[in-house]
Amino acid sequence: MFTNKKRVEYHIELLSTFTATPNQGVTRLTYSAEDLKAREYIKEKMIEYGLSVREDGLGNIFGKMEGIKNDKPSILIGSHFDSVPNGGAYDGTLGVVAGLEIAAIFHENNIKPIYPIEIIALVEEEGSRFGGALMGSRGMTGLIEEEDYQHIKDENSISVIEAMEKIGLDFTKNKYRDPSTIKAFLELHIEQGPILEEKEITIGIVDAIVGLTQLEVTVEGRAGHAGTTPMNLRDDALVVASEIISILPEIAIEQGEETVITTGRLQVYPNGANVIPEKVIFTIDLRSSNEEDIQQAHNKVKKLIESKNKKQIRTSIKQHLYMPPKALNEAINKTFKKNCDKLDISYHSMNSGAGHDAMVFSDVTDVGMIFVPSKDGLSHCPEEWSDAEHISQGIEVLFETVKELAEV
Amino acid sequence: MFTNKKRVEYHIELLSTFTATPNQGVTRLTYSAEDLKAREYIKEKMIEYGLSVREDGLGNIFGKMEGIKNDKPSILIGSHFDSVPNGGAYDGTLGVVAGLEIAAIFHENNIKPIYPIEIIALVEEEGSRFGGALMGSRGMTGLIEEEDYQHIKDENSISVIEAMEKIGLDFTKNKYRDPSTIKAFLELHIEQGPILEEKEITIGIVDAIVGLTQLEVTVEGRAGHAGTTPMNLRDDALVVASEIISILPEIAIEQGEETVITTGRLQVYPNGANVIPEKVIFTIDLRSSNEEDIQQAHNKVKKLIESKNKKQIRTSIKQHLYMPPKALNEAINKTFKKNCDKLDISYHSMNSGAGHDAMVFSDVTDVGMIFVPSKDGLSHCPEEWSDAEHISQGIEVLFETVKELAEV
Repeated sequence: MFTNKKRVEYHIELLSTFTATPNQGVTRLTYSAEDLKAREYIKEKMIEYGLSVREDGLGNIFGKMEGIKNDKPSILIGSHFDSVPNGGAYDGTLGVVAGLEIAAIFHENNIKPIYPIEIIALVEEEGSRFGGALMGSRGMTGLIEEEDYQHIKDENSISVIEAMEKIGLDFTKNKYRDPSTIKAFLELHIEQGPILEEKEITIGIVDAIVGLTQLEVTVEGRAGHAGTTPMNLRDDALVVASEIISILPEIAIEQGEETVITTGRLQVYPNGANVIPEKVIFTIDLRSSNEEDIQQAHNKVKKLIESKNKKQIRTSIKQHLYMPPKALNEAINKTFKKNCDKLDISYHSMNSGAGHDAMVFSDVTDVGMIFVPSKDGLSHCPEEWSDAEHISQGIEVLFETVKELAEV
Repeated sequence: MFTNKKRVEYHIELLSTFTATPNQGVTRLTYSAEDLKAREYIKEKMIEYGLSVREDGLGNIFGKMEGIKNDKPSILIGSHFDSVPNGGAYDGTLGVVAGLEIAAIFHENNIKPIYPIEIIALVEEEGSRFGGALMGSRGMTGLIEEEDYQHIKDENSISVIEAMEKIGLDFTKNKYRDPSTIKAFLELHIEQGPILEEKEITIGIVDAIVGLTQLEVTVEGRAGHAGTTPMNLRDDALVVASEIISILPEIAIEQGEETVITTGRLQVYPNGANVIPEKVIFTIDLRSSNEEDIQQAHNKVKKLIESKNKKQIRTSIKQHLYMPPKALNEAINKTFKKNCDKLDISYHSMNSGAGHDAMVFSDVTDVGMIFVPSKDGLSHCPEEWSDAEHISQGIEVLFETVKELAEV
């Protein structure tokens, strides 16, 4: 076994201390003070493991290990290092740490790849700060226009550009990564579901990632005094939003087992106890492994929202994101399986219910993704946890697979 | 006419600039930087009009005009100077400005009252920062225990004591005002409803103030990943909260015309677009001029909320405030009417759908309250507006009534 389990555990634990909510899970929003601390640490370790470090015009971090044929395209390994509010220590971060560990193994054992290898740490996969998820990978693959970044804003109306400047990142650098410079992208992630734990299997090999759409819904009514406005003269934006949100689960269940719909974020304006809400903005996250189910459910959601429009109530829907379901690379999956067999590690083929940067990269390069089990299937909460033994085995499988791709 | 209309307009306009949300209405939360600015201005004007100024242990401001018999109880005139978020320039502030104008009239005309007169400016009537409304008057009348102030906290967990210290107020000063030192309390306020404007009447004389109860409801479920948690395994706190909020209007309408129920404030935790909400906290404001209606509707609301409890969903209700409907002083109302007739100003007897500090004082002293019309019936919003002519006439009625009570 090449993996240094203690070192991996140490990295995960240390990175979990870069949180805005100590003792209440990891809250590391993109371009926050905590992002900056994690960023510095990741870059420091990259340098320690002999990588040459750079950041792109979105603050995505790249640590490059030279290949014997250094003009060949790179094998990218990594994940994201932002978190949801009050999330866990593993989601995303684990994949970055796995990348660092692979760099450390190559470095310690003085292994020289033919193809260059790049360990990458991506920003804003969760979309917890700027709304649309997968911003780091979408930016790299050219799915976001340069002009758009000034309009992508957080809750406090701070744009991507302003937020980057605040922690000293250079927004003017290039963001686009030419796909011809990438040979493959590999990601290790926690499962975020209960299947592997239930089946007592160590590695999940991801056949496909579910598709998702993320909507932002605005309901506008009229403010008024809570005491002096009779019920029949009200246009209460929160009552209307509540009528919508309480029906979303029915739409998902009607669509079938594979479809899920969630409102995770909601803001009331002006949000005073004795003021009738004038405006409510909330998110809708809709996923399925079947593209048709997504589209049908999306249409039903749209109809429901539009049915609420009346004289003084106006609803509007912005689609922040649509990603169809994505199949990952069969050849890489075969290599994962072969290496699991070789290392005598149990594995299981499965779909991913969560979106990942891997799905974005799958449009431009060969992508492979493996999961390790999540305790009680939990993620996006402080209780998120994965066993260091499973993690080490996952890194071993990844390492063997990287070696093959890099023609070591 | 004694009232200086231009001066009154100037005061209202100037005080409206002390807002945390310029161009988006008045947001002047208690003990904020904007409170401090308004406070300094009010005290400055009090001194200019010959009043001796003091603040109590809650930051309520008192400007005292000496009476010929200065050991007699005072006639209190005023209102509150906090606002709701993105509220208007008149709610509360107008009553303080009316008090200042009456002091100015006495001062300019060198009128000496037999009874002392105190112009008062109260804190936290709206409850927009600390949740339970009417804190300034409830504190003055001994309805809040001294020990409780450290537990009364705002959204950011800052207590009343800490917030006062931040703007240099002395929390250790006396808060309780002995009722034997008060002869009467008079308040001028905007109607916050459409009746006076519809009827083209200048002055509303308030017979009674509706009763209200304010609840804080917490729904706790389980967080989880929006993509990997099947619908049937979810305990989504926001879906449950939405089911409750969407039914509250039905309960109010069923109870009858005089009953209103509002959810004005709602917070989702952790509030991430792809996290199933773990916890939702929201307010319920319930009012009626009939005490039995309040109690019946309250019981129905409680039953509805409790019906949502199941294995992984826990609901709880805190009652922040209960005020029964309150009749105001008949003798003072007679004097208001007589003075309206004398000045040839139209008036109309009515109830107040909004709670006011006047209702708190009505338990300990004689209270009179008059309204001036609100444009389009709007309040608690930037569009809140009242005509300076109506305001001047209201101040004249108040002035004549104060003279009688102070035995000028």
